[in-house]
Amino acid sequence: MKHHLEDLYAALVDVLGEACIVRDEDLVSAYAGDWSEAPRQLPGLVLLPQTSQQVAAALDVCSRFSQPVVVQGGLTGLAGGGTPRPGEIALSLSRLNRIEEIDAVGGIAVVQAGVVLEALQKSVEEHGWSFPLDLGARGSCQLGGNAAVNAGGNRVIRYGTMRAMVLGIEVALPNGTLLTMLNRVEKNTTGIDLKHLFIGSEGTLGVITRLVLKLTPKPTSSCTALCALPSFSSAARLLKQARMALPSLSAFEVMWADFMAAAMQVASLRQPFAAEAPVYVLIETQGANEEEERRQLETFLGDALEAETVMDVIVAQSLDDKERLWQYRETVGELLAQMKPHAAFDVGIPMAAMETFVSSTREVLTRRFPDQRHLFFGHIGDGNLHVLSGPHLTDENLHCVEDIVYTAVRDVGGSISAEHGIGVIKKAFLHNSRSTEEISLMRSLKALFDPNSILNSGRIL
Amino acid sequence: MKHHLEDLYAALVDVLGEACIVRDEDLVSAYAGDWSEAPRQLPGLVLLPQTSQQVAAALDVCSRFSQPVVVQGGLTGLAGGGTPRPGEIALSLSRLNRIEEIDAVGGIAVVQAGVVLEALQKSVEEHGWSFPLDLGARGSCQLGGNAAVNAGGNRVIRYGTMRAMVLGIEVALPNGTLLTMLNRVEKNTTGIDLKHLFIGSEGTLGVITRLVLKLTPKPTSSCTALCALPSFSSAARLLKQARMALPSLSAFEVMWADFMAAAMQVASLRQPFAAEAPVYVLIETQGANEEEERRQLETFLGDALEAETVMDVIVAQSLDDKERLWQYRETVGELLAQMKPHAAFDVGIPMAAMETFVSSTREVLTRRFPDQRHLFFGHIGDGNLHVLSGPHLTDENLHCVEDIVYTAVRDVGGSISAEHGIGVIKKAFLHNSRSTEEISLMRSLKALFDPNSILNSGRIL
Repeated sequence: MKHHLEDLYAALVDVLGEACIVRDEDLVSAYAGDWSEAPRQLPGLVLLPQTSQQVAAALDVCSRFSQPVVVQGGLTGLAGGGTPRPGEIALSLSRLNRIEEIDAVGGIAVVQAGVVLEALQKSVEEHGWSFPLDLGARGSCQLGGNAAVNAGGNRVIRYGTMRAMVLGIEVALPNGTLLTMLNRVEKNTTGIDLKHLFIGSEGTLGVITRLVLKLTPKPTSSCTALCALPSFSSAARLLKQARMALPSLSAFEVMWADFMAAAMQVASLRQPFAAEAPVYVLIETQGANEEEERRQLETFLGDALEAETVMDVIVAQSLDDKERLWQYRETVGELLAQMKPHAAFDVGIPMAAMETFVSSTREVLTRRFPDQRHLFFGHIGDGNLHVLSGPHLTDENLHCVEDIVYTAVRDVGGSISAEHGIGVIKKAFLHNSRSTEEISLMRSLKALFDPNSILNSGRIL
Repeated sequence: MKHHLEDLYAALVDVLGEACIVRDEDLVSAYAGDWSEAPRQLPGLVLLPQTSQQVAAALDVCSRFSQPVVVQGGLTGLAGGGTPRPGEIALSLSRLNRIEEIDAVGGIAVVQAGVVLEALQKSVEEHGWSFPLDLGARGSCQLGGNAAVNAGGNRVIRYGTMRAMVLGIEVALPNGTLLTMLNRVEKNTTGIDLKHLFIGSEGTLGVITRLVLKLTPKPTSSCTALCALPSFSSAARLLKQARMALPSLSAFEVMWADFMAAAMQVASLRQPFAAEAPVYVLIETQGANEEEERRQLETFLGDALEAETVMDVIVAQSLDDKERLWQYRETVGELLAQMKPHAAFDVGIPMAAMETFVSSTREVLTRRFPDQRHLFFGHIGDGNLHVLSGPHLTDENLHCVEDIVYTAVRDVGGSISAEHGIGVIKKAFLHNSRSTEEISLMRSLKALFDPNSILNSGRIL
């Protein structure tokens, strides 16, 4: 790259102006992104365009120079996709951070890609609406990035993933075309729905610059319960019954006993029930009438107790109660810190295979690594299992754990990434979830959109 | 085509066998599809493959012969996409009609593309599940076709369109590749989600041969109410409130006064309320506890009466009542017959623009065609408006009506097809909903998947 850095810089200044480009020398002090976490290489230039047109123009320049570009949002990704590779320059969406419109009649928001998730959540709530995507990184992650990895989170069971919330999209293509598809209608069958190419493809085909997002009326009440269950199959039965009996169901989180024990230990929480149970389920509903909702939830769980689907139940009676019940699930951050170096998984498992997957994977991991912890939990309402294993002191052991888990995922026809994406860290395992034909077709699409392979290259494929 | 029909036939017999090909001479008697409706040209050959592999092999032969193919499902489409064009042969999915698996734990069905919608609905209900896509053509339309046009129907507000129900897909590509992507997990972020290319693209990129479908726990109760409202803006307010207060909301159908009057006349129904109203809304909920659901609905509508969002309300107290309330909405078939030759529209309109769109379009149509009827109704819960105008005795007048409506759709950024597709009949208006850049990209994708342009060519683009 070095030989043309000055020419490239001059061409980029032409389309962006100097104020939108940070050069190496001032990089660390001038760049607003969060570089403090995780070691990462520094790119020679960071582009900080302020308009969609500038993003497109910058890509056009980079295509002409065959200059590789890494796209950066809030830098909260967990698959290494935003980390610059040698020779790449960075394109940050951070300055495209304007909420352009909130349509309070139709329940629609139009945002630039760099808007932080939490900023949108707060903004729409003032208008009586809710943007229901929610995840731990809400305070830093950007909506463009959420779309690029098709983010999930805790409430997918009710509201779907990010894909279900994107009505329209604007994308800058590597050839400099700005593809404006700011659809605002729920139903639009007018040929290929192109936005789906960009949602979940981690910025390998184009850079998302704007989004039209679907809002949900703001819930004014919510109920939470923690249940102890005799087995996973009881949890699967409870899930089906809950999906029907509780139309306001918004979360169904499962934690296996080993996770629960580790959670209590790491955060000094007390045992919630008189006796230990093999499986715990955290249920949340969101609605408009707290009293009615709690009565409904209590009736439902009363029936489940009677049918012995659940062994014991705590229904939160106050906001404090709710927070206390969520605490067990939310120790994940502390567990991740304590178990370093760890292998952390985000896999999708068909419900019918979940029980066998968990018990056989636990057995294999425990046999091979008896001194490590192997914890299972996740958004089971949508088949999303998280596995946390560690500490593993050598790369070889980490790789061995990955191999065990991803092979098991392949064997049950699961997905090796449910919501974090492939990035660079899961590339080697892509074939466990996608066939040769699919990978070949993905390559053809990549070549069609990005013939010089300048955009987020080396990610996914 | 004639010069090679015998060679082509021989090559097709090689991969399909004679029993899977119907030749011109016996066509009408032997072919099981519904050819009785609407005039259509007859293709020289009809292929009736029995396996996915045969579909792929047949496409490979046709690609080598540059033989154009029209794909046919249940022949219930409303955009002319399944009608053979001169020189085309037909490929029917009718014999791929097996429900391969119903997973009652995970709530998943694996079906061949030719399974009729109603057959699946009935089959999964026996296992305590529901397949919630529902539309008038349920007795003939096939699931492959439903996916190809991303079908909608009455319950999109609760369950989404067909796209939201498709977890996995198998597609035969024009080059003979069978792309098997039978994903079973809700969340799968492992690169480009290729299935979305085929959902809604009306068979122009590949032929859907199998589907993995997401089921919903079977509702055991439902409630229905008909409301009279003072204005559309009241309906928009009621919709937002209903989406929050009634999480079991499964339909929100709006009928304007002119539709209601025509419905009563054509089916000899009596005026439901003491006084006429400008707008009527039909509300349905689906849940597991009828008594509680009705109480909830009555409370909700009581509040709406008090707030004067609605003027009058009928809540169905029996199954008969429910059917009576739905009757008004379901006169559409009779109205279509009575108003022939008519222009019938299926458009998506942003909620914030709906009221103006309806009133100004009605005004323009009434001024230009004062002796015709112009009726407005639709699945307004998801922004899907149907307009029915007729009778129009000349093609010129029909075209004029189309021009008026589609121009108005363009002006509010709507979609010219919400759920029926573009096919051949809306091709000329595609640019009203898709930009030049989008159309150009669609063409590039078409060329990538189908370089000889043999598959459903001349549809959409």
